[in-house]
Amino acid sequence: MADRFLRRAGAGEIVRRLTAKAVLERNLIAEGDRVLIAVSGGKDSTTLAWALSALRPALKRRYELGALHISSDFCSCCKKAFLSEKLKSWDIPFTDLFVPVIGRLKEGRKMNCYWCSTQRRTELLKYAMDHSFNKIALGHHLDDIVETFFMNLTEKGTLSTMPVKLSYRKYPVTLIRPLGYIEETQVMACAEELGAAAFACTCPYGINSRRRSMRKNLAAFTDFTGGSGKVKRRILAALTDLPLGGKDLADLPSGGKNLLDEG
Amino acid sequence: MADRFLRRAGAGEIVRRLTAKAVLERNLIAEGDRVLIAVSGGKDSTTLAWALSALRPALKRRYELGALHISSDFCSCCKKAFLSEKLKSWDIPFTDLFVPVIGRLKEGRKMNCYWCSTQRRTELLKYAMDHSFNKIALGHHLDDIVETFFMNLTEKGTLSTMPVKLSYRKYPVTLIRPLGYIEETQVMACAEELGAAAFACTCPYGINSRRRSMRKNLAAFTDFTGGSGKVKRRILAALTDLPLGGKDLADLPSGGKNLLDEG
Repeated sequence: MADRFLRRAGAGEIVRRLTAKAVLERNLIAEGDRVLIAVSGGKDSTTLAWALSALRPALKRRYELGALHISSDFCSCCKKAFLSEKLKSWDIPFTDLFVPVIGRLKEGRKMNCYWCSTQRRTELLKYAMDHSFNKIALGHHLDDIVETFFMNLTEKGTLSTMPVKLSYRKYPVTLIRPLGYIEETQVMACAEELGAAAFACTCPYGINSRRRSMRKNLAAFTDFTGGSGKVKRRILAALTDLPLGGKDLADLPSGGKNLLDEG
Repeated sequence: MADRFLRRAGAGEIVRRLTAKAVLERNLIAEGDRVLIAVSGGKDSTTLAWALSALRPALKRRYELGALHISSDFCSCCKKAFLSEKLKSWDIPFTDLFVPVIGRLKEGRKMNCYWCSTQRRTELLKYAMDHSFNKIALGHHLDDIVETFFMNLTEKGTLSTMPVKLSYRKYPVTLIRPLGYIEETQVMACAEELGAAAFACTCPYGINSRRRSMRKNLAAFTDFTGGSGKVKRRILAALTDLPLGGKDLADLPSGGKNLLDEG
């Protein structure tokens, strides 16, 4: 990785190169793959969709892309017109699926992160399998991965995080996180170039405030320990030591962040 | 563990109980063991010596204790008269061994943590084997273990730390850290009760400043994430998931702290 080049490169070029690096190093996309991108309309998943489309000529393997947006009965803030127009310009077929997350709640049950993400993940998986997608691409970036690691460590007492690649044991589908090498600030800069930065979609239940606090605190911690990006990449390298597919790495929503809530 | 009891208990009682908990849960000391305590004269190893002696009646297993102090040609600040008197009162035979750490340096080489700790560890191991000790007890506490974990994570990019128990593959000796469940503030309070708190022995080379900075930063981090002691114990629990004896867990000095420098 030509770090000197990256410092001079535009935000889009940085994201394109680091996504390619992750895809190649972690073998995230193979010849003939059908990749379903979970798009919320927010900055992360929009950047992911652009990067996977923009990389097609360079990656020298044929793969098909699709995008699925899950609408729900409690959130309608995302700019679907903008999203569908962008996806069209990037040659990515787009589907909008309505899931009544609240409507499915049993009587007396309150809305919570676990319920919401389970509903969304189930629908996403079902859609992928019904439409012959063998990969599901999620927009989590390096900061999400590092934060989840620290939240699981300090709150659950486990060494675990969201892996860059995870094959389901029960289903013929593999989850991939092609933005796993990229810091949030880099994703944000790219989203700005794409005109998608304004659409940060926040959960109206606001249950993610613990994650937001953790993010702020971690920024101070990693800055202190030797510079944000460098330290985060070292942490990611350490996490690849974790045995993939162990129980702690089961891809359940963790730390109050919905698995599919990339906005 | 009767946490409510511990809050009211004296510092010595807290250390005694948490040491017993570590010894029993991690099976650190067995019937018939000969345990060599590495004593620097500082607060940690003095507290450790007291605790292992005070626990003898309660633990219901016979074990023998010995204490080894390694003097060097660059540090003579520790209060050996105080130490040897205390150890005598706790019925622990005491040996003082001189190791010319600087004198052994090859010409042109500078003093460093790695060299010093290798010299000390080699002598400690040799002494233990020559005198039929099968366990070596070190005074590292919970904060040391957590700090080393974070230093290795952020500086080396590995998931590793000092284990509470480590058997050497090559030698008939097992390293144990019976203070591994105890926070530094708790050790300090106990050392004060013992009159040993004043003898914090700092390396004159002062190479440990990175660790000191990390300690300060981690204090803020763990306080932020839900209260110091609780979070540290959760981190320790996570670290027991690490495969013991893996290369990352090799008991080499890490993060600038000498393995045997407990002062």
